[in-house]
Amino acid sequence: MKNFEFLSPTKIIFGRGVEERVGAETKKYAAKVLLHYGGGSIKRSGLYEKVVASLKAAGVEFVELAGVQPNPRLSLVNEGIGLCRAEKIGFILAVGGGSVIDSAKAIAVGTPYSGDVWDFFANKAAPVETLPTGVVLTIPAAGSEASKSSVITNENGWLKWGLNSEVIRPRFAIMNPEWTFSLPPYQTACGAVDIMAHVMERYFTDVKGVDLTDHLCEAVLKTMIKNTPIAIAQPDNYDARAEMMWAGTLAHNDLLSAGRLGDWAAHLIEQELSAIYDVAHGAGLAVIFPAWMKYTLRRNRDKFAQFAVRVWGVEYDFEAPERTAWEGILRLEEFYRRIGMPTRLGELGIPDDRLEEMADKAIKPWLTTVGNVSKLTRDEVLAVLKLAV
Amino acid sequence: MKNFEFLSPTKIIFGRGVEERVGAETKKYAAKVLLHYGGGSIKRSGLYEKVVASLKAAGVEFVELAGVQPNPRLSLVNEGIGLCRAEKIGFILAVGGGSVIDSAKAIAVGTPYSGDVWDFFANKAAPVETLPTGVVLTIPAAGSEASKSSVITNENGWLKWGLNSEVIRPRFAIMNPEWTFSLPPYQTACGAVDIMAHVMERYFTDVKGVDLTDHLCEAVLKTMIKNTPIAIAQPDNYDARAEMMWAGTLAHNDLLSAGRLGDWAAHLIEQELSAIYDVAHGAGLAVIFPAWMKYTLRRNRDKFAQFAVRVWGVEYDFEAPERTAWEGILRLEEFYRRIGMPTRLGELGIPDDRLEEMADKAIKPWLTTVGNVSKLTRDEVLAVLKLAV
Repeated sequence: MKNFEFLSPTKIIFGRGVEERVGAETKKYAAKVLLHYGGGSIKRSGLYEKVVASLKAAGVEFVELAGVQPNPRLSLVNEGIGLCRAEKIGFILAVGGGSVIDSAKAIAVGTPYSGDVWDFFANKAAPVETLPTGVVLTIPAAGSEASKSSVITNENGWLKWGLNSEVIRPRFAIMNPEWTFSLPPYQTACGAVDIMAHVMERYFTDVKGVDLTDHLCEAVLKTMIKNTPIAIAQPDNYDARAEMMWAGTLAHNDLLSAGRLGDWAAHLIEQELSAIYDVAHGAGLAVIFPAWMKYTLRRNRDKFAQFAVRVWGVEYDFEAPERTAWEGILRLEEFYRRIGMPTRLGELGIPDDRLEEMADKAIKPWLTTVGNVSKLTRDEVLAVLKLAV
Repeated sequence: MKNFEFLSPTKIIFGRGVEERVGAETKKYAAKVLLHYGGGSIKRSGLYEKVVASLKAAGVEFVELAGVQPNPRLSLVNEGIGLCRAEKIGFILAVGGGSVIDSAKAIAVGTPYSGDVWDFFANKAAPVETLPTGVVLTIPAAGSEASKSSVITNENGWLKWGLNSEVIRPRFAIMNPEWTFSLPPYQTACGAVDIMAHVMERYFTDVKGVDLTDHLCEAVLKTMIKNTPIAIAQPDNYDARAEMMWAGTLAHNDLLSAGRLGDWAAHLIEQELSAIYDVAHGAGLAVIFPAWMKYTLRRNRDKFAQFAVRVWGVEYDFEAPERTAWEGILRLEEFYRRIGMPTRLGELGIPDDRLEEMADKAIKPWLTTVGNVSKLTRDEVLAVLKLAV
């Protein structure tokens, strides 16, 4: 087990009706806030109205910035930074899913910074201060509500890069599973794939002596495998939606990182995919993750076999452990198909003519490989992409 | 799933050598602190010297209060409160196990309070402020390093009562498994029983739709079942000690409470046992918990069967599920015996002539039953105690 630090300071307020507390929680941080969201979905669902009523009841003044898109854009972040400075905003309230929260984190960290906020994503500077942020979550997927991550797409070059910093964790996350009832099956499944990928990026470590976090990872995965199909079949099943929502937070608040090294190559390869083709992150991961697993299986065979046995209930083949390991990957692909996800690039409508370009971009300019556990060169990334065709 | 709040604000600093950071972490809270510990074990191990050197290097002034006993006493807490007030102490650093931390929390919460600190334990007042506390942990057991609990024994009547409040969670916990290498097998096993009991108090809920926390509980239990015998056989096995130490924290920081109702009757019954006979809390729990399980099994049969199947690998008996449920309890008892723990009162040297008195005292004066899931009357507590004979 490796040395680690862990704290989970985001106050989770979870359950039915909890959105009524957003005004009072927000008021603890500022009297004037930025209300940040995407499009019309929170207005159609009635959540917008509830949030606004709660803010007004608490006497919180707010300025609105809507229009966050999936794969949130740097241009809107910069617009938000300008708005926060001009309006002397003290807190950013994100109402939505991971894209809205990531955008809010970027605005929050860019507002007090004298340079270009992209510096933080381009690894040129590390944030030391931020406006505080809070979240009303509507999509279980990115785990951004309690994470230290933000991923932003720079339209100049379509670079989709991430920032990781303890500074940017939200102060609170208000999570009522009822507001996820209206998520369509495809988006529900995309979220599930993202959540499971956050766990698996941590699971396939090569650090030994990590029994507890292995079992905790398996706990989240088994919960997702049971509850995702239920939530798709019964969109208003409260318990299934609640399990997915809480799993999404624990998958990415770094509880599952304790003492181990995560890989993250699959995420970084997928980011290039969705930066070019603007596919849903979860759908991209459903294609890339199994391909990454197939490519790296032999480097970490026992862990893949453990995944098959403990997560999928595969019987261990003592004479051919590699067969067990393969079986786990096949079960994962079957599960993705069952919940309506693609497992090949062609199913996403992505041709194979720009694989070289994606392989090039998956290696950051200041690095020569991608991935922490299995360090993949540019040519190995290309091999992974070819396995996804 | 029930509504819940969760945050885990205690900063965990875990691994080899981390005790060197205690001075710098302490300095963030106060320039003059109370150094609180038990007897000579931290001096024999060399930890005392390391902590003092780190405090001095950081320029932190400290006053010492040693002498915390197992089942920590109110008289020492009151002495500490007097000392903190007289010396204008701003922070309490607990170096030791659960008894030292519980004592530190009680001193910390009593210092700014104008009334009698016992008010908080006697349910007469709720704390609103506290001195901040920090921990250097030496015993994985109580989970007090990140919990909201403190249990203190009032020598006047030998009342062993607990306080639960978000206010009292420590600010940081420094956890180096190497400082647990010197724990003797009996104390190691007592700690393991306590950790497992913290999980099981939460596990045997009657709340439905708690898949994720069920699996997380099972994760901690399976980790303990594997690693406790290793740590007893190989006291300096770093990974086994590390797994136990981290499991002990997660067992009691309320991650495993999310969305569910815990019972806690077994803990409260055991507290009366160890208040009268001054037995180790873990050893008392090894006797009381299986007896409580046998008494309550029929009220929650499916959960006990799930425990047998998922935690102990018992094959589910579809024709006689109750047999499966019983088998789980028997496996737990076997495990306790394997790690050198008693499972009957007689093995603790406790006769059966004061069971009535313990049953009386297990019901708090302001209540008529004990336990949240299975509410036990005084006569039912007596029945549990008789099953432990």
